[in-house]
Amino acid sequence: MGGNKAVAYKGPGVVEVIDIDYPTFELKDGPGVNPANVGRKVPHGAILKTVATNICGSDQHMVRGRTTAPSDLVLGHEITGEVVEVGPGVEFIAVGDLVSVPFNIACGRCRNCKERKTGICLNVNPDRPGSAYGYVDMGGWVGGQAEYVLVPYADWNLLKFPDKDQAMEKILDLAMLSDIFPTGFHGAVTAGVGVGSTVYVAGAGPVGLAAATSALLLGASAVIVADMNADRLAQAKSFGCETVDLTKGGPVEQIEQILGVPEVDCGIDAVGFEAKGHGEGASEAPATVLNDLMDLTAAGGALGIPGLYVTGDPGGIDDAAKKGALSLSLGTGWAKSLSFTTGQCPVMKYNRELMMAILHDRVHIASNVNATAITLADAPRGYAEFDKGAAQKYVLNPNGYLDAA
Amino acid sequence: MGGNKAVAYKGPGVVEVIDIDYPTFELKDGPGVNPANVGRKVPHGAILKTVATNICGSDQHMVRGRTTAPSDLVLGHEITGEVVEVGPGVEFIAVGDLVSVPFNIACGRCRNCKERKTGICLNVNPDRPGSAYGYVDMGGWVGGQAEYVLVPYADWNLLKFPDKDQAMEKILDLAMLSDIFPTGFHGAVTAGVGVGSTVYVAGAGPVGLAAATSALLLGASAVIVADMNADRLAQAKSFGCETVDLTKGGPVEQIEQILGVPEVDCGIDAVGFEAKGHGEGASEAPATVLNDLMDLTAAGGALGIPGLYVTGDPGGIDDAAKKGALSLSLGTGWAKSLSFTTGQCPVMKYNRELMMAILHDRVHIASNVNATAITLADAPRGYAEFDKGAAQKYVLNPNGYLDAA
Amino acid sequence: MGGNKAVAYKGPGVVEVIDIDYPTFELKDGPGVNPANVGRKVPHGAILKTVATNICGSDQHMVRGRTTAPSDLVLGHEITGEVVEVGPGVEFIAVGDLVSVPFNIACGRCRNCKERKTGICLNVNPDRPGSAYGYVDMGGWVGGQAEYVLVPYADWNLLKFPDKDQAMEKILDLAMLSDIFPTGFHGAVTAGVGVGSTVYVAGAGPVGLAAATSALLLGASAVIVADMNADRLAQAKSFGCETVDLTKGGPVEQIEQILGVPEVDCGIDAVGFEAKGHGEGASEAPATVLNDLMDLTAAGGALGIPGLYVTGDPGGIDDAAKKGALSLSLGTGWAKSLSFTTGQCPVMKYNRELMMAILHDRVHIASNVNATAITLADAPRGYAEFDKGAAQKYVLNPNGYLDAA
Amino acid sequence: MGGNKAVAYKGPGVVEVIDIDYPTFELKDGPGVNPANVGRKVPHGAILKTVATNICGSDQHMVRGRTTAPSDLVLGHEITGEVVEVGPGVEFIAVGDLVSVPFNIACGRCRNCKERKTGICLNVNPDRPGSAYGYVDMGGWVGGQAEYVLVPYADWNLLKFPDKDQAMEKILDLAMLSDIFPTGFHGAVTAGVGVGSTVYVAGAGPVGLAAATSALLLGASAVIVADMNADRLAQAKSFGCETVDLTKGGPVEQIEQILGVPEVDCGIDAVGFEAKGHGEGASEAPATVLNDLMDLTAAGGALGIPGLYVTGDPGGIDDAAKKGALSLSLGTGWAKSLSFTTGQCPVMKYNRELMMAILHDRVHIASNVNATAITLADAPRGYAEFDKGAAQKYVLNPNGYLDAA
Repeated sequence: MGGNKAVAYKGPGVVEVIDIDYPTFELKDGPGVNPANVGRKVPHGAILKTVATNICGSDQHMVRGRTTAPSDLVLGHEITGEVVEVGPGVEFIAVGDLVSVPFNIACGRCRNCKERKTGICLNVNPDRPGSAYGYVDMGGWVGGQAEYVLVPYADWNLLKFPDKDQAMEKILDLAMLSDIFPTGFHGAVTAGVGVGSTVYVAGAGPVGLAAATSALLLGASAVIVADMNADRLAQAKSFGCETVDLTKGGPVEQIEQILGVPEVDCGIDAVGFEAKGHGEGASEAPATVLNDLMDLTAAGGALGIPGLYVTGDPGGIDDAAKKGALSLSLGTGWAKSLSFTTGQCPVMKYNRELMMAILHDRVHIASNVNATAITLADAPRGYAEFDKGAAQKYVLNPNGYLDAA
Repeated sequence: MGGNKAVAYKGPGVVEVIDIDYPTFELKDGPGVNPANVGRKVPHGAILKTVATNICGSDQHMVRGRTTAPSDLVLGHEITGEVVEVGPGVEFIAVGDLVSVPFNIACGRCRNCKERKTGICLNVNPDRPGSAYGYVDMGGWVGGQAEYVLVPYADWNLLKFPDKDQAMEKILDLAMLSDIFPTGFHGAVTAGVGVGSTVYVAGAGPVGLAAATSALLLGASAVIVADMNADRLAQAKSFGCETVDLTKGGPVEQIEQILGVPEVDCGIDAVGFEAKGHGEGASEAPATVLNDLMDLTAAGGALGIPGLYVTGDPGGIDDAAKKGALSLSLGTGWAKSLSFTTGQCPVMKYNRELMMAILHDRVHIASNVNATAITLADAPRGYAEFDKGAAQKYVLNPNGYLDAA
Repeated sequence: MGGNKAVAYKGPGVVEVIDIDYPTFELKDGPGVNPANVGRKVPHGAILKTVATNICGSDQHMVRGRTTAPSDLVLGHEITGEVVEVGPGVEFIAVGDLVSVPFNIACGRCRNCKERKTGICLNVNPDRPGSAYGYVDMGGWVGGQAEYVLVPYADWNLLKFPDKDQAMEKILDLAMLSDIFPTGFHGAVTAGVGVGSTVYVAGAGPVGLAAATSALLLGASAVIVADMNADRLAQAKSFGCETVDLTKGGPVEQIEQILGVPEVDCGIDAVGFEAKGHGEGASEAPATVLNDLMDLTAAGGALGIPGLYVTGDPGGIDDAAKKGALSLSLGTGWAKSLSFTTGQCPVMKYNRELMMAILHDRVHIASNVNATAITLADAPRGYAEFDKGAAQKYVLNPNGYLDAA
Repeated sequence: MGGNKAVAYKGPGVVEVIDIDYPTFELKDGPGVNPANVGRKVPHGAILKTVATNICGSDQHMVRGRTTAPSDLVLGHEITGEVVEVGPGVEFIAVGDLVSVPFNIACGRCRNCKERKTGICLNVNPDRPGSAYGYVDMGGWVGGQAEYVLVPYADWNLLKFPDKDQAMEKILDLAMLSDIFPTGFHGAVTAGVGVGSTVYVAGAGPVGLAAATSALLLGASAVIVADMNADRLAQAKSFGCETVDLTKGGPVEQIEQILGVPEVDCGIDAVGFEAKGHGEGASEAPATVLNDLMDLTAAGGALGIPGLYVTGDPGGIDDAAKKGALSLSLGTGWAKSLSFTTGQCPVMKYNRELMMAILHDRVHIASNVNATAITLADAPRGYAEFDKGAAQKYVLNPNGYLDAA
């Protein structure tokens, strides 16, 4: 029980597999742990043996050195596991359960949790509402790109798969329930996607592809995915989306060619603050996606914004960007009566329903995002390739569960 | 322009094709026309040359003689057509447009229409809120199982297909937009169906099959359709539903065999007041479906009730049924915190979105309900076969538009 | 700490103050405790010293002998208290906190709780979803008409008042948060009450008055309360409601006199299965209220049904009533596209918001329902007077906290 | 019938009463009329004799010369009137009816109108979705600050008061239904205001006061109104609001003093793009209000933005402002999972309900906004005083109807 290998951030551009302590039912001091959280007891927690733990685009912000993440911060907030130990306060989760862990850590006892807003739990992060595993400035909960991980408030947070054998048959799909599938779904839901909607998704990374998958699952009539990366666009095409190639210019004309009208009902931002302009070789321009969406979404539409925007970005392109200020053409949105929904997806609002859709074979998220299992030792390669734009969703396999998948 | 052949109710069990007047922009006296509607001017109307006009289960209540419908009432409220003439008050619908007609007639000018409740328009039926073409006690608007038909408030009521050629390629699907597809969809929506839901649909007639289709389109994980008619159950299986055969007994055990639990999230009543009990040869028992649904829907669930319940039924099985009183185990529903939604589907709330889903090939309603075009002259045969339980949705083709379909 | 006086049901028509054990963090065997719950550990619980504990109309069903409640069952599910002890699993509730206890017991860890449906929690009652303190067939949690009471899952269930002194100034108002205020509010919300609505409330008992209060708080333009009890109607008039006196006949004509039209937008059933017919001396007729509401609610309206309906009623007026079957004119509701919402109010969905309204002086629920503090010893008198129709809401004061109120 | 006096924009800072033609059922050419609208037939229209017609803050943008409004444009989009003539296509509105006119002109026949989005009707403004009377770039419909005015699509647009005598008793209140009351209400609704909410309203002009009134009507526990104008703040205090004086600095500290916490549940922007910074003598800073609201609204909250933002502002303070670009700290909003709703209020979604609340004496909007009737001839004075910050809502009285009010 002594060992626990984990993926850590070592400095800009560098991740490494290191040895950390096996979890106990206490949040101990360590890199990035908020002092107010040090020594916090976790009798309500469960220790998981990791089944699958994915590399996420938002991990890349840290790895690229655009945050204040300290060295040796253990990464990973997309976790699926088998319960190997439960604290004395756990009543309904048991050893042996196969579970999905929502990336947002939530207490299940504050006003926001009681209102299903688990992305902004008031009790887990001393700095502000909301937390996540293995993430800078989120309270210091140890990341899950590791062999073992502690999950607090296990009865509340964990989603148990009803049948282990059935679950293992679709484990790569179920591994997407911890973050990107609900996150993409939240983007689609908050963009107002329903039966018959026409939808534009900015970004064909894993979240964009998950948003597109979600839009189709919700009955959208046409889903258009935009990116500059040909491989990722091909991935979108593979499951029935239309595509816009932004190296060829802005999206409006291409939308008109596809739909016959230059606008869609619903716009989803699956890019966030590291957006680029249009055309071959365009450079970073953080307000591009939001301004595009206001242009191309029809009057009365809605924008779902799962893409991350930050309050400060030391690596920003100019002073405004460094302090997180965007130059938005809000008047365009106002004239069209648009609405906007931002923020972390509250995973627990959606993960059970999406699990049901996976288990009954109604959606194939793993193949849509090209989920690919690799070993924990290969994590550095996974980070590097993903950063270069590989059209893959890397799933770490620290304990061999995915060898058959 | 003089002639207009139409299907009329002649007496219990008898329908005939008769000759009626070509429509004008006035509601003239005739069988079943409410005196207060006689002479009503319809400058806001359009005259359609009928493209498709379907036989509906609710027409059968009249044809079986269980209503006070007068002889020579022209039947038909499921109408798709080509506009051949418009009144002086029509501004946005033009001659040549190919359109779907919602079966509910609505003025677009009363409080209910302004609130999207077009199933209970206050201005079209002098007797009560709500109206329909060719239906007893609904104001007297002439039915559409005819070569030509008048549609009032054309700018409000008509849904124009954006491209005629594209529409003609899917015309049997689009013909379902006038009633059963939205009606089934309304059943699913009001039953709370969403992504991942498990759903039970009572009745595998056209509305039940449309409800099942809708549930799948909304992302349901499992859809179970129940009936006593093997052909109709086979139809449900053909597009991915599970089935419950009620000749073998009640639904709860069969649901448990399918899902592993004896209950579903959402219940839909696509049967209505002519329900029967369970088991081979069961006789009429009007509260059966609702009591079943309260039994088999999980606590917290919802019941969508598109199936028709009436205020009086001269052919009812006993005194209570004759005055429309049902013996309901409401305590069962109350203990489970169930909710219930009844009434006509407000077609305009859904038909545009469903049209989009059809045009973009996201749903195949015509094949799911086994839509079958027959000539106007064959209408009596269609009524008879449908009444005997044919697993078909009969679509009349008065003007030859469907010859290629 | 040894003693604990409590109000117990002794037999039809009889309640008594008895001595019971001081609570511990375990559910021990006793009258009405479900065997599967005996010995259940409650480390997540808090022990409260009772500040206020109200007599509820639903207690009367037991006291009248119309249930299978055993002798010595401790009554009381409307509890406000001060925390005097917390179990080891409690993290955010502390000794000294002044709290309101939702009458529904909920675990905060099952699917339904996570979806805010705390009235049908899956983990607290071995018989079926949903539970309550001191109630027959609800799992056996000891009632709170006592000096001390155990509340399980304290972090989840308890609503802490932000400031004790401020709270004590409005303690009789806050005491209504445990049940009747949220229950009436739920009735109003599920009846679709919003700004400008016209509302009919059947029943001027405490829940009916709370529903009327809620309707006004939600912005209703006119609230009409109906009863046969002149004192209770006077109570309704005292805070701005219109009234219908059912001893004078049915409600429709009286509504028309008040509003100029014979119908309202929203109907609330605050009576339930012990309903009576209309007119002086009318006898029990359990479907009366629901059939009335279908008559008098306008097409497109909704019915909120907080009034209790049961699955079996040994004291029912006939065989149908004994098994909980009601003869409902559902066709009337169907023709009007009505919807119906039944079941226990999920208190946690509303109690924080209503607390805020009380604390900021926006509503005066205690005076509207005529809340009256009496001693624990006087509980038998309270039960008797309430059963006779006193226009009062009796609040037991077991520990003297209310002496100043 | 020949004469028709009206208030016209003559140039920056100048309005005058001029003589224009009495309306006919056709949109004739004139100042600001879109060429595509010239000669448009309006058989569906009604001609109103104006009862009340208010000066609106958005009129001031034109009068200050910050738009491209042409000279002689007739102003006025807040109209209440008596019907004196109806076109041949009008069926349910009759001569003699007393009516409120929603400021958004809507056809009642396009997709958006059918979806209740009447603020972005597709058929009334050739330039873009959405229109209004007497407003630049809105299609050219003649303004209603006149003795007589034409209202198109009268059956759809007009809200008839049920009883003329009753209406005349509350005519100043009812006059607020054409714009500011629904607009403020929409701000409150889209900010998520419900029972118990704490609310911050930026701006104590008429729309801000209407938003505050609406928040109270919706059951808000505390409503805080912020402005730099002492008279307007006094007006807010007069009906139960708390106030923040922005000449004393930013809002957060003042909110904390009032509520004990530095944040509210709901934020409303009733200022728009002509916002100023904080502190005595602060100059224009168009993103101030939105950035404030993101700071002071609690995580999970919503922002209602009825305040106008434009796509271009020739008078803007810098290049960004001139093209309508705002520097927004969106990362702050994103970290808090805020949502934002922009755009014109769709008046028809709310005006009937608010009328009911007025007629039943549940709200006193006229006194809350200090509605003051003045003669048509006094319009120039009204414009001038309002521009200087008078805490009044000026209501023009062109035909003497308000002499008694």
